[in-house]
Amino acid sequence: MVGTLYGVGVGPGAPDLITLRAFRLITAAPVIAYPAPDTGESFARSIVGDMLHDGKIEVPIVIPMRTERYPAAEIYDRASTEITTHLDVGRDCVVLCEGDPFFYGSYMYLHDRLADRYACEIVPGIASPMASAAALGLPLVSRNDVLTIVPAPSDDDALRAQITAADVTVIMKVGRHAKRVVELIAAMGLTDCAHYAERVTIEGAQFTCPLAKLGDRTVPYFSMIIVQRKTQRGDV
Amino acid sequence: MVGTLYGVGVGPGAPDLITLRAFRLITAAPVIAYPAPDTGESFARSIVGDMLHDGKIEVPIVIPMRTERYPAAEIYDRASTEITTHLDVGRDCVVLCEGDPFFYGSYMYLHDRLADRYACEIVPGIASPMASAAALGLPLVSRNDVLTIVPAPSDDDALRAQITAADVTVIMKVGRHAKRVVELIAAMGLTDCAHYAERVTIEGAQFTCPLAKLGDRTVPYFSMIIVQRKTQRGDV
Repeated sequence: MVGTLYGVGVGPGAPDLITLRAFRLITAAPVIAYPAPDTGESFARSIVGDMLHDGKIEVPIVIPMRTERYPAAEIYDRASTEITTHLDVGRDCVVLCEGDPFFYGSYMYLHDRLADRYACEIVPGIASPMASAAALGLPLVSRNDVLTIVPAPSDDDALRAQITAADVTVIMKVGRHAKRVVELIAAMGLTDCAHYAERVTIEGAQFTCPLAKLGDRTVPYFSMIIVQRKTQRGDV
Repeated sequence: MVGTLYGVGVGPGAPDLITLRAFRLITAAPVIAYPAPDTGESFARSIVGDMLHDGKIEVPIVIPMRTERYPAAEIYDRASTEITTHLDVGRDCVVLCEGDPFFYGSYMYLHDRLADRYACEIVPGIASPMASAAALGLPLVSRNDVLTIVPAPSDDDALRAQITAADVTVIMKVGRHAKRVVELIAAMGLTDCAHYAERVTIEGAQFTCPLAKLGDRTVPYFSMIIVQRKTQRGDV
């Protein structure tokens, strides 16, 4: 009897924004793996920390945070090997994933390595664009609106083209790209159609504002800008 | 003391894919509103049916399903008025929304009418693209991939342009547009990069396949095609 691998989305940060299914699997599984920085706490683990009873086996997957380039393939090879030692003796393994596992999630690197050999089940999670729209009280898309999600590291030409082609654009992982992206949106004359959001469901840390009010705020990695050129809901 | 209006995402269909927060609000609220067809059961209500104890006040918002044009503004005006009669006497109202409330959800029409007069809170839900990717075992986007979500009723030129500009495209609400969209993807030479998914989390009703295997299947409204021109995860 081999174990099952579960890629489990734990949502954007608030513990009560995990699903009932995620809760059941996390509390039942004998082994929990999660991405962790080389120093400090794992964000994914912190979301469900109160649900982890004593005696669970924990497998932190340590990803260096301070360098652009790190030996990713080697890290996921090693984590996969450690996880298989548990699966092979019949222990189910839950891999915690911030947000949704298949939406810019690192779980997919484990999935690529293990899905052909083990039973895998993915539990979708609340993705950050939906959480940010909820926190802003900003309906995101309606009717036949086109929504594009584009990471901020994309170059200026790509960002401009994507914003122009979509009705609504979500620019993810703004972080150190904030100044460049904010200026690009201003040059397109779209500042007044844009909002900013960071850590939206984390109590005490959440912050949202119209983009025009962002000023010189230091922008974290987990942040986004939503640009709504137009939406089609006005006529209902 | 007036009540609070909650726009609550109930996810793609499986009852255990609602969040802990949604579960708490749904079981506690004295009034539950939901979209309903003119004949048959409300899909949103069916997801949480087992959680609705006796004595809850239910407000179905009846949307005619068989016509393209219906008096939408009038329907939401009337529903808003009915909901305010409860809010005004201090009853919290939960509006159930399939998927996520602000992601092509009809809740936003109530929000537009009520948010300036009542306290509103949005509870994000699992959106269908993430649920479909999970059901297909198909990592959706990674690293700096651009994801575009486009409704199938868009015209051919728009669909082609969006598919060409994005790394990954999710075509929503395929339904009666299936033949046209499938032929368009084939003409672009992208059939082998595409998958099909319908009702993915509904037990006994779910169906997924590579697009090449869709054949002349009758495609329901709640269905999608995912086209992955390229993704950037290969190098990890």
